[in-house]
Amino acid sequence: MNTINASIITIGDELLIGQTIDTNSAFIAQELNKAGVWVHRRLAVGDVYEDIWKALDEEGKHSSIVIITGGLGPTADDITKPLLCKYFGGQLIVNEKVQAHVKYLFEKVYRRPGALLERNLKQAEVPDVCTVLHNERGTAPGMMFGPQPNGTVFFSLPGVPHEMKGLIVKEVIPRIKALFQLPVIVHKTLLTAGIGESMLAEQISDFENSLPPTIKLAYLPNFGMVRLRLTTQGDDPVQLEQKMQSYFEQLQLAVQQYLVTNEDEGLEKVVGKILLQQNQTMGLAESCTGGYIAHLITSIPGSSAYFKGSVVSYSNEIKEAVLGVSSSTLQTEGAVSEATVREMVSGALTSLRTHYALAVSGIMGPDGGSEEKPVGTVWVAAGNKEKTETIQLNLRFDRKRNIEMTAMHALNFLRKFILANS
Amino acid sequence: MNTINASIITIGDELLIGQTIDTNSAFIAQELNKAGVWVHRRLAVGDVYEDIWKALDEEGKHSSIVIITGGLGPTADDITKPLLCKYFGGQLIVNEKVQAHVKYLFEKVYRRPGALLERNLKQAEVPDVCTVLHNERGTAPGMMFGPQPNGTVFFSLPGVPHEMKGLIVKEVIPRIKALFQLPVIVHKTLLTAGIGESMLAEQISDFENSLPPTIKLAYLPNFGMVRLRLTTQGDDPVQLEQKMQSYFEQLQLAVQQYLVTNEDEGLEKVVGKILLQQNQTMGLAESCTGGYIAHLITSIPGSSAYFKGSVVSYSNEIKEAVLGVSSSTLQTEGAVSEATVREMVSGALTSLRTHYALAVSGIMGPDGGSEEKPVGTVWVAAGNKEKTETIQLNLRFDRKRNIEMTAMHALNFLRKFILANS
Repeated sequence: MNTINASIITIGDELLIGQTIDTNSAFIAQELNKAGVWVHRRLAVGDVYEDIWKALDEEGKHSSIVIITGGLGPTADDITKPLLCKYFGGQLIVNEKVQAHVKYLFEKVYRRPGALLERNLKQAEVPDVCTVLHNERGTAPGMMFGPQPNGTVFFSLPGVPHEMKGLIVKEVIPRIKALFQLPVIVHKTLLTAGIGESMLAEQISDFENSLPPTIKLAYLPNFGMVRLRLTTQGDDPVQLEQKMQSYFEQLQLAVQQYLVTNEDEGLEKVVGKILLQQNQTMGLAESCTGGYIAHLITSIPGSSAYFKGSVVSYSNEIKEAVLGVSSSTLQTEGAVSEATVREMVSGALTSLRTHYALAVSGIMGPDGGSEEKPVGTVWVAAGNKEKTETIQLNLRFDRKRNIEMTAMHALNFLRKFILANS
Repeated sequence: MNTINASIITIGDELLIGQTIDTNSAFIAQELNKAGVWVHRRLAVGDVYEDIWKALDEEGKHSSIVIITGGLGPTADDITKPLLCKYFGGQLIVNEKVQAHVKYLFEKVYRRPGALLERNLKQAEVPDVCTVLHNERGTAPGMMFGPQPNGTVFFSLPGVPHEMKGLIVKEVIPRIKALFQLPVIVHKTLLTAGIGESMLAEQISDFENSLPPTIKLAYLPNFGMVRLRLTTQGDDPVQLEQKMQSYFEQLQLAVQQYLVTNEDEGLEKVVGKILLQQNQTMGLAESCTGGYIAHLITSIPGSSAYFKGSVVSYSNEIKEAVLGVSSSTLQTEGAVSEATVREMVSGALTSLRTHYALAVSGIMGPDGGSEEKPVGTVWVAAGNKEKTETIQLNLRFDRKRNIEMTAMHALNFLRKFILANS
């Protein structure tokens, strides 16, 4: 079966001046991939007529499916709809279903019928050459153009993430499945820690050489850990799954001692699964990460089953008052010290009443470093009521990355502590 | 002066299957913009020989500057360097400076000379037709090809964010400034809250109609707030700044009652600036946001001057034990109630000893909702020792967005509280 290629075009100057990070494309790519469509190009262009036109021309030749997001809002800087209308040779007409939906949203959902403006009603105008895709989450409808004479089909969606997501799942994917005969794409991903990309490549070179050309291996290093991904595609899902499973098991064996998880999930999920399994709880005492570890953990639905809370003790006062770190420790050893994180763990275990506690204290930069404790000096402690273990990290670079690196190392340290002490 | 256009090409399957969100491009675009270069296309392609080749061909015609990131690692899935070598008609040769740098990193910085592998040394091989760009933060050098006969210059950089960032700032931007005569690009951005995109467009329609064609106005709605951006470019920085300032002041006047800040900064920065000015402090009691508000605030360098900490009270136990919320309130009113967030503020003021406290409690989903309190029900309270005010939010959609929306609304509520009560 042939690969069906897709292009994603995102429209908006904010993407090109770096004001906004494009998260829409990742979601669209994931959903297309699950359906068996290979996204081979992602293009961002600004709110510029000729640039959008050229993008449609080129991507329409490169791909069988072109998904366009953005540029459909109610304000004057959005030029996409008239452009699409001209590009596909149609005329703008009022779609009564869309108009009724816009009115319904203002009256029943937003409950502000008086706020309905002419420019909102104009969103019900669509090119007469498109199929309207119902956007239950907002006023701008999705549009499908084609299949064109060369077989390519274009989808235009609003750029507001939750509206775009609803349209992709409910409208776009079902239509693509109806229009194309799609192969099955299978990815298998695992996460390793404690070994660099190059050493890992040496470690699994025999495995890598044994892979058939139909299976691709990718290395994805991030935050001092490396994710490995196997990818293949074919027709028969059962056969494909079996073949992949066998190679994936060999890969897991080859990286055994560094394996964190054999699923495509983050460390916060891995730690949560272990705690759920053991029916135990955890708490945090965060200084330098400022709540970021708690945020990662609580981003997982259902985390309240094992996560009780965090004391973000950004000041020494809070370390003393809420966590009971002794003022003499803070004075003699400093807030960034092994002694302090040990006392933070003990304070968190007491005040949060959990089985495990994790504590971090460090200097994230750009200021606050000294010769003795430069920016990037971090102490991490993990403990339960029997014992507490610590490590020191020496990070480099910028504040944002230091916070993220600290969170990842700390979660991995807690994971190992729980596994070794349960 | 002519606009100098740039394209950014990012290489890697992880971007095309949605496994990774592309943050590199935003950074590169920001830096190019500051230097006066207009990024008009951003393209992502996979680790596929023909796709990369075609991208070089096309973007080399579209743009005077092409920046390529990714595909330069030490493992076999990285095919970019040999491809670039062939594309620009060169041969791979060992660059002794790079080789010495790789050895230096392993010996002195990583302090693991034994971990140095043949494949790491191979990173010192570069095409003999490129100018090597020193990567002080890693082993893969940057490369500059050209200017080519048509005037276009290509830069190839590793995809690891902190290595790429170092190369952009220290090597790429200075070379671009030396090669091209660049105009000045000026953006002015403000943030509004409390008014939707459409109503805002009505409110400022006279202003919008008065803008000369050389100044662009963009609407950037996000989390229930709308950012407005004016953009222009020209030769004379002083004259440009004056002209923009005059229009920007008119715009601020037109949106006066909704204006949050007249700089391109987040709410967490705005709140921090107000507190710094007043020499006052704040603390948090976070339930449903799980540390996310604390993370936003502590992402600002220097936030320790006004932020003391947060009690992330994810369980009711912690609300009682650490924040002193009464068990009768939790039983009769529930954790998501006006009474609970009021007591959380009072508990945070006491235990964190700050001038202001902000508390949130809500149901983020996907589970935990009831008929009386559906997913998206949130209570927010802001207070000082004299008084506490509350609002209720009714959000919709997914967990991640609900957490982000709650954080933004809560920070804005605190901002208004501080301004009204100081």
